[in-house]
Amino acid sequence: MNTIPDITAVGSVALDTVTTPAGTRTEMLGGSATHFALSASFQAKVGLVGIVGDDFPAEHTQLLQARGVDLAGLDIVKGAATFRWEGSYLHDLNAAETHCTALNVFATFRPTLPAEYRRAPVLFLANISPGLQLHVIEQMDPAAYRICDTMNLWIRETRDDLAKVFAQVQIAILNDGEARLFTGETNLIKAGRALLKFGLDYCVIKKGEHGAMVFGKDDFFAAVPAFPVESVVDPTGAGDSFAGGFAGCLARHGNHTHATIKEALRWGTVMGSFNVAAFSCDRLRTLTRAEIEQRLAILQTIIA
Amino acid sequence: MNTIPDITAVGSVALDTVTTPAGTRTEMLGGSATHFALSASFQAKVGLVGIVGDDFPAEHTQLLQARGVDLAGLDIVKGAATFRWEGSYLHDLNAAETHCTALNVFATFRPTLPAEYRRAPVLFLANISPGLQLHVIEQMDPAAYRICDTMNLWIRETRDDLAKVFAQVQIAILNDGEARLFTGETNLIKAGRALLKFGLDYCVIKKGEHGAMVFGKDDFFAAVPAFPVESVVDPTGAGDSFAGGFAGCLARHGNHTHATIKEALRWGTVMGSFNVAAFSCDRLRTLTRAEIEQRLAILQTIIA
Repeated sequence: MNTIPDITAVGSVALDTVTTPAGTRTEMLGGSATHFALSASFQAKVGLVGIVGDDFPAEHTQLLQARGVDLAGLDIVKGAATFRWEGSYLHDLNAAETHCTALNVFATFRPTLPAEYRRAPVLFLANISPGLQLHVIEQMDPAAYRICDTMNLWIRETRDDLAKVFAQVQIAILNDGEARLFTGETNLIKAGRALLKFGLDYCVIKKGEHGAMVFGKDDFFAAVPAFPVESVVDPTGAGDSFAGGFAGCLARHGNHTHATIKEALRWGTVMGSFNVAAFSCDRLRTLTRAEIEQRLAILQTIIA
Repeated sequence: MNTIPDITAVGSVALDTVTTPAGTRTEMLGGSATHFALSASFQAKVGLVGIVGDDFPAEHTQLLQARGVDLAGLDIVKGAATFRWEGSYLHDLNAAETHCTALNVFATFRPTLPAEYRRAPVLFLANISPGLQLHVIEQMDPAAYRICDTMNLWIRETRDDLAKVFAQVQIAILNDGEARLFTGETNLIKAGRALLKFGLDYCVIKKGEHGAMVFGKDDFFAAVPAFPVESVVDPTGAGDSFAGGFAGCLARHGNHTHATIKEALRWGTVMGSFNVAAFSCDRLRTLTRAEIEQRLAILQTIIA
């Protein structure tokens, strides 16, 4: 592999066991980098940086490769077990209840980026510890446009490191609960503006069924309602799929103008809406660009 | 008064004592019909049907009249006390905690509409008991376009009567909690579609800081994000102001096409955003049409 990806994506690759009102599925393909890469692959060539054990099924790597995802950055460790996550959404489809987290080989994750990956124009830091995110940023070409995700765990336990990440990325993508937790602001408009003060160019706040908003340091603001979905089978990875659609759009355009950011918000919304329609990444296996374009068009007609 | 109003509005007129994080104010002008009428008055001539005691301050009737609201339908009962409500929003700005409800003269409310009011092209039934709403519908010209609001109390206690109201109005406006409570559906898209089955042409679901959605019986769907407000001083009456902007827009256009319904959703959103900016109806006292047009224009630019 000697080509430079459009996006270098760093995060978890996992085997998920998930219970939702639609049922239980065991050992499915999961992980933040997986959902992100499959989603972004409809617009950009993704180089995936992650780690798995040699128990990771070949069909999963084949699926990623079939979608054009480069796996030169996926470390497959002999004799080690892949990261497992078990959770359920029985009480609230917006919040997972974690039953078991077996980090396994992921506990040793300290990625060294392939040389080509360091020159990618876009870097996506999925939900990993802020310390690891900083470790990756150090390896990247400083010209890369950097986008990060995070989670409540890092806000609670390593807030200072996360603030350092925010100072070194252009865009942070958080959900509403994380934005409130990080800033202490109940009002999401205040929270979004407060986040910008940590050095971001843009801050995206995802609100699940209520859509998403983006704040710019130049007082830019945009919002999109959610794509209307009646049936949520499995919300796992919806945020990563949102980020994949969002970052993919920026990578495809090669810029981050207000118009591109707005289009990226719509792409994120639509990719998230597909993600929740089936367990794991199953809906994205058969998804076509035409189906995506159709939802993007519908989204624009339903906006009042 | 011998002219036919554009909208006949029936609901409560009250004196509110409210505590929010911004402070406490006592005996302010309140009530669902009051907030609705002041909001709708920017687009339509409202005939207000309500009841107060002779303790109701003259400055309040003067304010309503200054905004062109017709008060031929406001019954001022000698020797009786006006409806009082006391509540707070200290824990959650989206949900009022009621401390005291003194119905007083409102307990005897059983309105007889002035003759001219019966011929209004639009009827708005604010949050009163479904039994009273049906009593009003019986008096109206059957050609009137009928819009109703409600609250969780009536859904819990008089659900069957409320279903009868839904069968006799064209549009019901509910908030997200009420829509979920009435239908038993957690998913708001399912809830909106389920509500249509009760005979409505359109169902509007308000989501506070998350915007609003409208569902049509012909599979029409539209959504709008909220107007971004950093400071909520007093949410009391925001839903009524939303309804005033919404119904006012329909009355002004004299139709209920999809385009008008979408514009009405934006008007509702903007009028609600003004309502919360000060205690009681205070922001609407000084509000100008130019300020409204400005927010309507901003709302369209921020939509991604």
